[in-house]
Formats: sequence, C-alpha cells, structure tokens
Amino acid sequence: MISVAIMGHGTVGSGVAEILLTHKHKLFTALGEELYIKYILDLREFPESPVADRFTKNFNDIINDLDVSIVVEVMGGTNPAYDYVKRSLQAGKSVVTSNKELVAKHGAELLAIAKETNANFLYEASVGGGIPILRPLSQCLVANEVDEIAGILNGTTNFIFGKMINDNMNFDDALKLAQDLGYAERNPEADIEGHDACRKICILASLAFGKHVYPDSVYTEGITKITLDDVKHANNLGYVIKLIGDVKKTENGKLDICVCPMLISKDCILSDINDVFNGIMVKGDCTGDVVFYGKGAGKLPTASAVVADIVDCGKHLKTRKRMFWTDGDGSNIVSYKDSITSVYLRVEGNGDKAVEAFKDSQVVDANGETIILTKEYHFGEIEEKLAALKADGVNVLSAIRVGNI
Amino acid sequence: MISVAIMGHGTVGSGVAEILLTHKHKLFTALGEELYIKYILDLREFPESPVADRFTKNFNDIINDLDVSIVVEVMGGTNPAYDYVKRSLQAGKSVVTSNKELVAKHGAELLAIAKETNANFLYEASVGGGIPILRPLSQCLVANEVDEIAGILNGTTNFIFGKMINDNMNFDDALKLAQDLGYAERNPEADIEGHDACRKICILASLAFGKHVYPDSVYTEGITKITLDDVKHANNLGYVIKLIGDVKKTENGKLDICVCPMLISKDCILSDINDVFNGIMVKGDCTGDVVFYGKGAGKLPTASAVVADIVDCGKHLKTRKRMFWTDGDGSNIVSYKDSITSVYLRVEGNGDKAVEAFKDSQVVDANGETIILTKEYHFGEIEEKLAALKADGVNVLSAIRVGNI
Repeated sequence: MISVAIMGHGTVGSGVAEILLTHKHKLFTALGEELYIKYILDLREFPESPVADRFTKNFNDIINDLDVSIVVEVMGGTNPAYDYVKRSLQAGKSVVTSNKELVAKHGAELLAIAKETNANFLYEASVGGGIPILRPLSQCLVANEVDEIAGILNGTTNFIFGKMINDNMNFDDALKLAQDLGYAERNPEADIEGHDACRKICILASLAFGKHVYPDSVYTEGITKITLDDVKHANNLGYVIKLIGDVKKTENGKLDICVCPMLISKDCILSDINDVFNGIMVKGDCTGDVVFYGKGAGKLPTASAVVADIVDCGKHLKTRKRMFWTDGDGSNIVSYKDSITSVYLRVEGNGDKAVEAFKDSQVVDANGETIILTKEYHFGEIEEKLAALKADGVNVLSAIRVGNI
Repeated sequence: MISVAIMGHGTVGSGVAEILLTHKHKLFTALGEELYIKYILDLREFPESPVADRFTKNFNDIINDLDVSIVVEVMGGTNPAYDYVKRSLQAGKSVVTSNKELVAKHGAELLAIAKETNANFLYEASVGGGIPILRPLSQCLVANEVDEIAGILNGTTNFIFGKMINDNMNFDDALKLAQDLGYAERNPEADIEGHDACRKICILASLAFGKHVYPDSVYTEGITKITLDDVKHANNLGYVIKLIGDVKKTENGKLDICVCPMLISKDCILSDINDVFNGIMVKGDCTGDVVFYGKGAGKLPTASAVVADIVDCGKHLKTRKRMFWTDGDGSNIVSYKDSITSVYLRVEGNGDKAVEAFKDSQVVDANGETIILTKEYHFGEIEEKLAALKADGVNVLSAIRVGNI
C-alpha cells in the first residue's frame, strides 16, 4: 500500500480523490499495489466527502508522516505551494503537481532538489490537462532532436476565437460567453493576456531543450486587440487566427520563443483545433510533425493526468524518472527583436506608405482598408517600420504575426 | 554499455542503426549508458555501412552471445521473426519490434514468455509508426477506463482518399499514384483490403482492454469498392470517407470491433487528417477525446519509435514494463451482425423500395440516384434488408457505414 497526501481539494484536487476512489481496481492492476489517500489538505470542510475523515488543515501532518511517500500539489499559485512542495521533496517524498505557475517559475530548483533526495517530481498535468504530452516528449520522442514545438495551449482563448470565427461574435461578447460558461475566470487576464500559455510553452521548452526558460524571458502578447475584421480578413486569405505558444531552435542553437496571436494556414492541422481543445505540435528530426490533441483543462481530464503521474511515482519509488532540466539564465534565448517572422498588417486607406515600407509583400484591397502580408523580417525591423509609419501619420490598425509552422 | 542486436537491415532496420549512430549523444544522456550495435542480422551484404563489421547471417551469433541484452526485430513477416523473437525472449533477452503482423498474431504468447523470463517485449512502432500511442495509452491514460479507440491507421489508404476527395481522382488512378510515390506496395492488398489497419486495431484493443484480439475475429472491409460518386455525395452531406479501425466497449462489456470505410462527420477532428498521416482517437472516461497525430510509417519515424523502446528496455533491464495483455479466445468480441450502426446507401433510380425498407431515414435525391442515410440498425439486419432488396431487383450501388465517433 502506498500512502498519498493530496494538497488542495478544489476542482482538480477533488477530481484526483474521485479517480483514486472510483478507478481503484484499474489502478491496482496497473501498479500492483493499492494507492491510499491518507491526507487531504484544505482549509475548508468537506463533511459530505467519502474520505471526510482524512482531511487536515495542517501541512505538518503530511511532512512529518514517514508513511506518506507521494505528495500531490493541486492548490495552484505559488504560495504556499512552492514552500510545501520544496519541503516535501527535501524530505525525500515524491511530488506530483498540476501547477503550471509553480513549474514554470521554480521547476529547475525543484527538479534539482528531487535529484538530490532521489525523489520524483512529476508535472504532466501542468501542460495540456489530460493530453499526454510531457511523458511522450521525454520518452517516446527521445530518439529525436526536437526542432520546434508549437501549440494551442489555452482552451479559453481558443474558444473565444472559435466564437469570433464561426458565430461572428466580437471579442467582448465572446469573452463574456466564455465567462458565463465557466471557461474563463471573472478576472480573465491570465488567459487573454497569454500568461497561461506562456507558462506552458516555458515548461515544454525547458523539458525539450534541457535548460529552464523563465516566463519573463518570453515575448508574450495577448488576444485583446484582435478584431472581428481581422478574423474575417484572415479567413479570406486562407488563415485562421489562433493564440500560439511557439519555441524553435535557431541555427546557432538558441531558442526563438514567443506567445502571440498568429495567422495559421488552413492547411496546418493546428487550424482545425476548435472550441476549448488544445493541440500541441512537436517537430522532431526523425518523426516529422506529431500532434497531441485533447481537452487542455477541466476537472477529470487534468486529474487523470495527475493520477497517471501518481502511478508512475508509485512504480519508481526507488528510482528516478528522467523528466529533468537544469537551470537557465536566459542566455540561450533569442531576443524577440531578432526573431524572424512575416506579419499581417491592416492599414487605413490605400496604404501606399505602408506598402512602400514593406516592399515585395502581398497586398490586398479591402473596403477602404489595405491588408498587407509582409515578407519575412526581423521583428525589431518590423517594429521600427511601424513606428516610422505612425510618425508619418499612417494608421496601422492591426499587426499580427503570420505563423510559419 | 548495453549491447544491441538488430535483426533486419531493410527500411526500418537501417533507420534504427542510423539513429543509434547519429543520436548517440542524446541517447547516452537519456539512458546514462551507451547503446552499442553488436550485431546486425541480414542475409544481404552492406559493405558501405559504417558498421559493416557487425553484420552476421547467423542468428546463433546473437542468441548465444550473453552480452546481447536487447534484440531488435525489424525483419517483418512472421517467419523467421516469430521463431527468433520467441527464442530471444526465452533466453531472457528483451525484444523490441516494429512488426505489427507478429504482435497481432502472437502478442499474447510472446508477452507471456517475456513475463516468465523477466524480459521486456516492447512494440510501440507496430502502431502509428513514429506517433507515440501505445505508451501514452498504457501509462498516461492509466487513470481512465477506455470507452473507444477509433483511428486512421493506414497512411496509404488515407492518401488515396485524399486524392479522391481533393483532386477528383478515381480509386485506380489514386492507387497507382500511391504506388509511384512509394507509399503503396506493388501488391497493395494489405493496405487496401484493410489487413494492415486490422492488425493495428487488434494491438490497440488488446492493450487497452487486456485480452488478445486476433485479426481473424475482426470484421474487415477494404476500400476498393468506394467510388468517386460516394466521395462526392458524402462531401455534400457534410462527411468525408475514411478507412477507420474502431473498437468500443459495449454495455455488456464486450468489444465491438471493425475495420471498414466510414463516413466521418466534418465536425470530427479525424476528418481533418489528410495525406499519409495517421490519427488515433482514444476516448477515456476521464480525459474525453484525446487524439494522437503524425506520420504512421516511413523509415525514420518508425525507427525513432523503435529506438525509444530500446532506451526504455535499457532503463528497465531488471524490471518489467506493464505493457501487457493475456490470451483471448474471441468470446469477448461482439459478432459483427450484432454491431449497431447506420449506413449510407446509394441506390439506382428513385429508391422507393429501399426507402420503404429503411423507414425513417434521411433521403436525398441525387441525379437519378437516391442517397439514404439510415437510422441505426444491427448490421445483420442491414445485411438482410439489402439481400431482400437485391432479390426484389433493387440495385444498391454502395453501402458504407456512418461512423458515430
């Protein structure tokens, strides 16, 4: 019997407890041992829970119990999650987490502690919810050099784009609908400003390339400026707009990484990922394009990924899984100004000056506005040209990257 | 240092050797030990190979060498692959294979031998080529009861449908193009008659549900009867035609399994999987729909899955991976006549009698022909109705299942 402590009894935490109870037999068969919920840490009371007797409000009950070999952190945020996870690992307990903020901010440090104490620190649920992605990336694709990872990593923003594309809804109405349906938080900033997707691409990049990439070193742009007009023009040009987290290895070995709305060609499978679904494309030098698709959030999908990690910890209580990276100082990240991309521009009027500034680009007349799909430039150069146009009185209504995925 | 023997130096085998040599450093980092190619078994000579000195024509060199702990079978077919794999496992060596025919026919027996001798028998590359699917299915989705697996499991037939759908090409021309491009064999039977997809759905079903499903217990229908007319009518009705391998758990716990062309709704992500790509959808009770997408065949994609298994064997030389199933006698398989489905029918003339026979179905007039999308029936009942219509002089030109995925 392996004793497990679950820290947090919110959406994901209650899902983890539910799966451990309802899928007991299947998990026993897979692991060869019983997984026993010994503690659930939460400040609230849950008298109706079938494991109401296991609740505690005191982390010391968990850390001081030698019997607990696996600690599950599903509290969210970094305080007190960071402290509790760190102390659990230092005590030689294995930790499973779904907390992307924690892993993106402190992954390298926590993995190093786990290595020192010969414990496991697993975090499959932190990216893509129920979609298997991190374990396949580190195990199944081990015989590949990863060239690029590009993904729709946030279901809420993908839902909003879907409503704009298919139902002609503007951004504000689509966001309100997402909130009404419970997909978006009352404070939707983490989703719509791209912070959530940024944490996830940081975790993917860290694991795939071996050095920690911190969120503050990633160029991150949200979707709040995207208009219904842009969505329609993109459609006419054979594209859809998606919020993409992207990291690719450049020729000098550095990482070009960003999170921003992009025009994605309708020929790319990522353009077909709709509603609240996530899709993550991994380009390996041997496999070519591999895509993982599914629900990137939600109680049971996320909890099922957590439970798979618990089982994996249970199988490897005395050995360590190599889902590992070391610390990074940002020196392996390309400045966003040096990133090479083409952009979609929507310009007021006939756009003569903009067309001249972005020579040799594709130009489309559109009802008193001009659409320009530029050739490739360094992003810094694009910024300079846009600033000069603005100074010259040209009204550039939108500038959105064109994904080259 | 771990010594590996590779049996077969064809497309996949030469890819395995290539990756082991070119990705040496990455593999060493992942495994913590060097993987050394000690033998390559092939009757042909390869004097230009960088490992020309390791070739042998004699299996005894491998089986008698205690140093060889991992044997890779990439010969294809079952003779002599079955004998060599069996003897390798009996000798306590771990075996990695990409051979779907071998696994679909003899998986249960070989897994049982591996269990007895505490060896590993891994076969990730046998389904989906370079797409990670079997390991995610058994590890990442362990906290799910699998309800259904449905997939486009054969790239050649998917390429042919793509040409029919997008380029208006008829079946014979599309097949010839596939052959010219090297996607289809000169003898294309295994692909176009569905045998290849059948072996793969058998392996998926065996692993997901725990009992061996043999190919001869699976209703299998090829794509040779599909006409350009059917492809067009399907398109007008909001469907595309795909060759689907499908297994689902019925209410009484038995498996409803088949391989056949199906009309797939354009709303289903599987309808977006084009060209030679494969896509496998796993429906879990917790995750919902998860899809794995990528190249299902080809030298380096398949070889990279083989090498990932070699690394996994290397990590688990003294323990066993639970990628396991026991033998099955077919008693857990629903008779294909009891399978419940709706069908698309194309009937000559106004189709009155067919419309009467399949009451309450959707009927579309189509240029002197009648298209009927029936409601759901047991497949045996559909067969009976079609036989009665034929006896009554009604010319039913096509009958294709409508997928309910």
